[in-house]
Amino acid sequence: MAASLTESRASNKQIIFKNYVTGYPKQEDMILTSSSISLQIPDGSTSLILKNLFLSCDPYMRGKMSEPIIKSYTDAFTPGEVIYGFGVAKVVASGHADFKAGDLVWGITGWEEYSLIPEPKGLLKIKYTDIPLSYYTGILGMPGLTAYVGFHEICSPKKGETVYVSAASGAVGQLVGQFAKLMGCYVVGSAGSKEKVDLLKNKFGFDDAFNYKEEPDLTAALKRCFPNGIDIYFENVGGKMLDAVLLNMRNHGRIAVCGLISQYNLTQREGNHNLFCIVTKRIKMQGFIEPDHKHLYPQFLELAIRYIREGKLVYVEDIAEGIEKAPAALIGLYEGRNVGKQVVLVAKE
Amino acid sequence: MAASLTESRASNKQIIFKNYVTGYPKQEDMILTSSSISLQIPDGSTSLILKNLFLSCDPYMRGKMSEPIIKSYTDAFTPGEVIYGFGVAKVVASGHADFKAGDLVWGITGWEEYSLIPEPKGLLKIKYTDIPLSYYTGILGMPGLTAYVGFHEICSPKKGETVYVSAASGAVGQLVGQFAKLMGCYVVGSAGSKEKVDLLKNKFGFDDAFNYKEEPDLTAALKRCFPNGIDIYFENVGGKMLDAVLLNMRNHGRIAVCGLISQYNLTQREGNHNLFCIVTKRIKMQGFIEPDHKHLYPQFLELAIRYIREGKLVYVEDIAEGIEKAPAALIGLYEGRNVGKQVVLVAKE
Repeated sequence: MAASLTESRASNKQIIFKNYVTGYPKQEDMILTSSSISLQIPDGSTSLILKNLFLSCDPYMRGKMSEPIIKSYTDAFTPGEVIYGFGVAKVVASGHADFKAGDLVWGITGWEEYSLIPEPKGLLKIKYTDIPLSYYTGILGMPGLTAYVGFHEICSPKKGETVYVSAASGAVGQLVGQFAKLMGCYVVGSAGSKEKVDLLKNKFGFDDAFNYKEEPDLTAALKRCFPNGIDIYFENVGGKMLDAVLLNMRNHGRIAVCGLISQYNLTQREGNHNLFCIVTKRIKMQGFIEPDHKHLYPQFLELAIRYIREGKLVYVEDIAEGIEKAPAALIGLYEGRNVGKQVVLVAKE
Repeated sequence: MAASLTESRASNKQIIFKNYVTGYPKQEDMILTSSSISLQIPDGSTSLILKNLFLSCDPYMRGKMSEPIIKSYTDAFTPGEVIYGFGVAKVVASGHADFKAGDLVWGITGWEEYSLIPEPKGLLKIKYTDIPLSYYTGILGMPGLTAYVGFHEICSPKKGETVYVSAASGAVGQLVGQFAKLMGCYVVGSAGSKEKVDLLKNKFGFDDAFNYKEEPDLTAALKRCFPNGIDIYFENVGGKMLDAVLLNMRNHGRIAVCGLISQYNLTQREGNHNLFCIVTKRIKMQGFIEPDHKHLYPQFLELAIRYIREGKLVYVEDIAEGIEKAPAALIGLYEGRNVGKQVVLVAKE
């Protein structure tokens, strides 16, 4: 079919993935370009045109920047193509029966101002808009469900148990700590700056917190915070921290392995030397990823919305303004520069 | 009370633990001595005198030879005192209502010809004597329950799944492989000699087996045996083998961590570098020890007895004759010299 004679187009800034990355990603690995995009759906197509409002920077994205040697649960980005990830967007045009122009959605979208989504099955319509829309990249999105599932489903927490969270002020960690407090657990978190440690203690209600960068001996730091040991460890970082935790775990402890961000950018990963504790202390260590638990999202959403409205859950975001800031924001994640969930604001509406 | 005028005594060879060990234990770390022991129970005592028939050599005993720096689930041996472990014995004299002279028992006893057991709560009476008595140190004892619990309770096996067992011809491994075959799984084992590999394939019915010492690349060896990956790994060795396994696990795989014998004698443990697979493949890795599951022993015993009588379970033992052989037999375990369960015959009856 012929395109409309009055076809409307928009200029479209995009972040292009340059090539596979070794070691820490650099800003130059992502290129800002500008092109234009038609804002109309070809007749008969079931695709959507989205105007992207918020883009999410998440640790797992580093895995998509490496050359795909070992098949992972997530495909690599394609060199020369637009980076993609979670985001919040407004439907500009829809050829799909489930969506109409003006709908707000969250899910996988491109790192660009406008995205053509050929198949919108990965997108969810946003039902509650009295909550900041950016929250759908965080507390109400993938990180939120990750924290909920990782803590409640993988760790089997019981009231009164001791919980340790690393990367505790991040998108997931800050929620795990709050879920643990809501369960009646004793919760300690670690983070990489005084500002973050203050957030943990004063904003998120952790019982205690420490700056891991200022601890010469992580094993001793954990022993100080948990004189009787750790029942549950929510693992976001790996490496030396995991070894220190293993020495401090209690018998029958549980470790939910959500991520190992300390290792993602190393060309030679650190070794873990204390796995013998898994036997002697009968530890369960379990990896998980959020997509396996998507069916729990509706019940999680209702709970989270209620807790947010009641003030029982709070959320701290670090919002970079402008799509051109996206590469630096993503890189900052691996250096711990973000304070709270890292989001990129592309457009306000 | 005065001892009987006709007190009977016996000479008693004993194996004494010399001192804490670093690195591989040597024969000189255990000293053969001889003393004598009264074979009568003091009036009013509830103790037992045992004549030891079989002593068990088990990998966990290495942990009891190290200086106790980190508290473990098992106490260290005391320098200068008799080594102890699982064994099969005959009651010579009993001051305890539950036991009488002539009873056959298994449980914790001393590495000596006769043992005075002040409190017999760790001893079980042997009910079935149509099975070789030495089996109560193996298939019908701690290693048997270990294999049963580790495989059935920790690994949640399903028919048709792929199972890999390391140290597969050992006291536990040979049983795990047979339990897995009885479940309808595809089972591959590894061991350290051609003789052991032949046993795995021809005696225990493993689908495939390999000699890990002859594989220059363990990851490739596992890929060859499991082109579609491993669902269940029964971990007995640790170290490089675990890293190779992690790369070959399937999504949602389970690893029961029974022991890490490759690491027990190292002063500097090897590092494990592939824990990222725990996240990407959503692996559950769980340590366990047999004492936590003792309540399952009665049901396990009935099952094992039935399977042995029906010829569905076989068991291979490596029996060293004479208590003076016990130190060499124990050391041999860490060098893989034993073929099958290592037992020491102290007395035939």
